[in-house]
Amino acid sequence: MKELGKRVLAGDIRAASRLIRNLEDQITDTYIAIQEIFKETGKSHVIGITGAPGAGKSTLTDELIQAYRSQGKTVGVLAVDPTSPFTGGALLGDRIRMLRHAEDPGVFVRSLATRGAMGGISKAVGEGIHVMDVLGKDRIIVETVGVGQQEVEIINHAHTVIVVLVPGMGDEIQALKAGLMEIADIFVINKADREGAGKLYKETMNMVQMSRDRAGVSKGWQIPVLLVESVMEPHKFAESVEKLRDKIEEHYQFLVDNDLISERMRRKTAAEIQEALWGAIMCPILNEMEASGEMKRMIDRCLLKDTDPYTLADEIALRYMKEGLAKDICADS
Amino acid sequence: MKELGKRVLAGDIRAASRLIRNLEDQITDTYIAIQEIFKETGKSHVIGITGAPGAGKSTLTDELIQAYRSQGKTVGVLAVDPTSPFTGGALLGDRIRMLRHAEDPGVFVRSLATRGAMGGISKAVGEGIHVMDVLGKDRIIVETVGVGQQEVEIINHAHTVIVVLVPGMGDEIQALKAGLMEIADIFVINKADREGAGKLYKETMNMVQMSRDRAGVSKGWQIPVLLVESVMEPHKFAESVEKLRDKIEEHYQFLVDNDLISERMRRKTAAEIQEALWGAIMCPILNEMEASGEMKRMIDRCLLKDTDPYTLADEIALRYMKEGLAKDICADS
Repeated sequence: MKELGKRVLAGDIRAASRLIRNLEDQITDTYIAIQEIFKETGKSHVIGITGAPGAGKSTLTDELIQAYRSQGKTVGVLAVDPTSPFTGGALLGDRIRMLRHAEDPGVFVRSLATRGAMGGISKAVGEGIHVMDVLGKDRIIVETVGVGQQEVEIINHAHTVIVVLVPGMGDEIQALKAGLMEIADIFVINKADREGAGKLYKETMNMVQMSRDRAGVSKGWQIPVLLVESVMEPHKFAESVEKLRDKIEEHYQFLVDNDLISERMRRKTAAEIQEALWGAIMCPILNEMEASGEMKRMIDRCLLKDTDPYTLADEIALRYMKEGLAKDICADS
Repeated sequence: MKELGKRVLAGDIRAASRLIRNLEDQITDTYIAIQEIFKETGKSHVIGITGAPGAGKSTLTDELIQAYRSQGKTVGVLAVDPTSPFTGGALLGDRIRMLRHAEDPGVFVRSLATRGAMGGISKAVGEGIHVMDVLGKDRIIVETVGVGQQEVEIINHAHTVIVVLVPGMGDEIQALKAGLMEIADIFVINKADREGAGKLYKETMNMVQMSRDRAGVSKGWQIPVLLVESVMEPHKFAESVEKLRDKIEEHYQFLVDNDLISERMRRKTAAEIQEALWGAIMCPILNEMEASGEMKRMIDRCLLKDTDPYTLADEIALRYMKEGLAKDICADS
């Protein structure tokens, strides 16, 4: 394993692909490779793209790659795919993604899908970003399917967050938008030719204007709402995505000029430390409990109502942890 | 706090509401109340409903409540709402949900939205189910917005999982379906009047027929695909939701007859134990690190590339944990 990080640092694409696969499989040893490359990270501009299924994020990402390549910038893409809980594995897959860039050495696309570990996807995304970062990609696009808490965690890794909305997705979207309002740096109304696009645009603009000052990460940034034309109109589509690209650059410059980048970096690092703590503390305990068959016995006892998960958890904590840690309110962990 | 659990056991609705709010806020002390009620849990049939935003899950849930009430069964509903990462809080809210049942003492509806803790939502859902369970609700419906890994974790708390699909949600749905195939016990094609409903029905039927034997939880169950009529046709809509209700009951009976309930209970309990371990081990450590300002210092050091999250995590593990725990592969924790 030790070689893997060094080979990635040397620009070995196959080593990078292998490392990302290992992250996906949550092989704990991969942390050694990430340790090797960590000092070289932090150079790329990370762009998060999220939104509901069917919003057209992949098509948008594909065109955004094009828009950056036309400026000579290199691009990495991490596509977080819906995970099969039992088999794991990226369902959309690299194969069917961004085919037209397959031969372009300036573009590196990987899908990520991780198994059921709590925070597992977010951890793998943070590490995947490091890999593409040390490969020297100028821009890294993280694309996630969905709009839940998990996507929020993933998006914490990005400097610039794009939320893609699309007409005709039902009322739930209205509620989702309110949550998205707090993570979005740029709203995109996709498939602008669709019925209801104008209405959605107005509603989103209203929400943006009504939204109070945002939490630290983008103070003073006026969230723009961009209309992106249908892919059926290739020329208009490309033009509106170029506008999006320029707006993304403008946002990054805004973060730099207002010294807000550091806040994003802190947020990202805090998440990474918490995820590393999970790997260093919880994983060994859970593994030992599985291996010894204790987990099975504990489940049996809970099913018999002979005890409860909380009492058992306190017992385990006493056994594995040194004295003197008080249990406390834990709202923001 | 100690009183809260006892009051819930006594059927105090306001205490139950308060307890659920506390779960949402992830106040660690609520575990005391859950300990108090745990022995009385395990009587309800838990039904999970998931699917993409805009699939019409809330309307379906509302009608499903009606279908169960017409049989005299009591119903609890836990609606997991999209979370605002900074403010937290349920965005859809109890108020705008299932209004027509607001006056019915046989129906208890609560929205759940939790803050950024890893696995936080799943933990709160598991505990919220316990609360509604000891309130004596015959059926508990857990409704989640989305189709990501997080929803899979949430849905692990359910005996019967309904996946709602809707025509015209784009190709991503096709990929999502493959993941959903492994969690779904029943597929619902909602808004069956919409263009593309027939096509979606056929595709889903094909996937169901092609799907290999499933993992333990529903061995031998032939996943049905039900068409639910548009709410615009109230009579047809009600009729098709009654069919859904009967199919849900049939699935539960199937689990009982084939002794598969116990497998679901084990899966649920395993998740609860892991989540309780997080609360007992990780929370106190993270809190102490926050309080002492050490987290801040660690972030600074990572930003300076003076060290990395993994090295720091190992240091923390050594400090807090007793000797003799080997770091190991951690794929399934």
